[in-house]
Amino acid sequence: MELIPGGTLITATPEEGRQLAMMLARKSIGAIQPDAAVRDSLRPTYSHDPDSLTAAAHVVAIEFATIAAANKYWRKKS
Amino acid sequence: MELIPGGTLITATPEEGRQLAMMLARKSIGAIQPDAAVRDSLRPTYSHDPDSLTAAAHVVAIEFATIAAANKYWRKKS
Amino acid sequence: MELIPGGTLITATPEEGRQLAMMLARKSIGAIQPDAAVRDSLRPTYSHDPDSLTAAAHVVAIEFATIAAANKYWRKKS
Amino acid sequence: MELIPGGTLITATPEEGRQLAMMLARKSIGAIQPDAAVRDSLRPTYSHDPDSLTAAAHVVAIEFATIAAANKYWRKKS
Amino acid sequence: MELIPGGTLITATPEEGRQLAMMLARKSIGAIQPDAAVRDSLRPTYSHDPDSLTAAAHVVAIEFATIAAANKYWRKKS
Amino acid sequence: MELIPGGTLITATPEEGRQLAMMLARKSIGAIQPDAAVRDSLRPTYSHDPDSLTAAAHVVAIEFATIAAANKYWRKKS
Repeated sequence: MELIPGGTLITATPEEGRQLAMMLARKSIGAIQPDAAVRDSLRPTYSHDPDSLTAAAHVVAIEFATIAAANKYWRKKS
Repeated sequence: MELIPGGTLITATPEEGRQLAMMLARKSIGAIQPDAAVRDSLRPTYSHDPDSLTAAAHVVAIEFATIAAANKYWRKKS
Repeated sequence: MELIPGGTLITATPEEGRQLAMMLARKSIGAIQPDAAVRDSLRPTYSHDPDSLTAAAHVVAIEFATIAAANKYWRKKS
Repeated sequence: MELIPGGTLITATPEEGRQLAMMLARKSIGAIQPDAAVRDSLRPTYSHDPDSLTAAAHVVAIEFATIAAANKYWRKKS
Repeated sequence: MELIPGGTLITATPEEGRQLAMMLARKSIGAIQPDAAVRDSLRPTYSHDPDSLTAAAHVVAIEFATIAAANKYWRKKS
Repeated sequence: MELIPGGTLITATPEEGRQLAMMLARKSIGAIQPDAAVRDSLRPTYSHDPDSLTAAAHVVAIEFATIAAANKYWRKKS
């Protein structure tokens, strides 16, 4: 299984970096619970629990911090 | 869906950086639970639970750390 | 609403940086739950629950990490 | 017991870095609960609880941040 | 109330930095719950709950990360 | 009580750095709950709860991030 789609942390834009952050978090879950049917069965509960949603957003924020640093924050060269 | 409104981490002021941090956190939630009606239904419980509020503030703090680094902390040039 | 009182992360001293960290955390909560009466009603429970207190201290620690980096840790120039 | 398989944080690719992050998290658990039979007995509950899965993904994200920094984000030399 | 005893993040040794990290965490709690009698009443429960202890250790780890960076990790000059 | 065994964050190898991370986390717990008998009594519950184990691994990951930075990630000099 691939944990980092594309195999790199470098993205063209912040938006793509953010999408990658979400994918990294999902791939971690997929590696720990490889059964897609189980993961799907958990989704209704999880996506209706505000604390579960916040916890997921937390992981995305941390993955994004790493990706943003890797990309030197996509600062414009001057 | 857009995950980073404006498509950049660079903001003119710390205050705008803070607003962006809050938006990033909200956009993550929106990406995981795309149904606005569901999200709205969760809000009353969540916004009256001190631990939920603290958890949300935690995510904002982490998003802001990334944005602040991207902006080199808005330090005045000398 | 102002999320960063004073509009800057730069403070004269570590102590002021710490106070700012606490304010940032509170302002986040205030932005998510704008009703001061609701926030006040949550305080008795929250301030008597050790885990709630630890979670709040956790957010302060993260906000402070950003502020301390912004101020280059208030290291004395030599 | 070995806590860091291979004894280094340096990996050839981001994908290998991500695998190492997962291993580090697992080795920490193994060091705290050395009985493999106990760990195996916990797995069914844990891998069917969305919040447990998110918490595990959170740890992987933090381990990966360290590994990514160690590898200077596998940025291509130019 | 003083949030940073001594008013600086700079310490002579890592050990003193660690002690400061513990004090910062405690001072945060003290600022949120200023009533020492209430804090003392929470201690028995809290200090016998392994998850509360881990959460407190977590905050100490984060405070220490900031202090260690401020002190450039107390690396020996060469 | 000593919070940092050896009094330094510098270690010869990543493996030793990881061991130190685990010790720092344990020493924090020991400082908050100094009674070894109490700590021992908590261990059976804690070491059989997957969420407690994950939370402990989380703290180790954060301590290790600091130690790894202190050691410049044990990168080989070239």
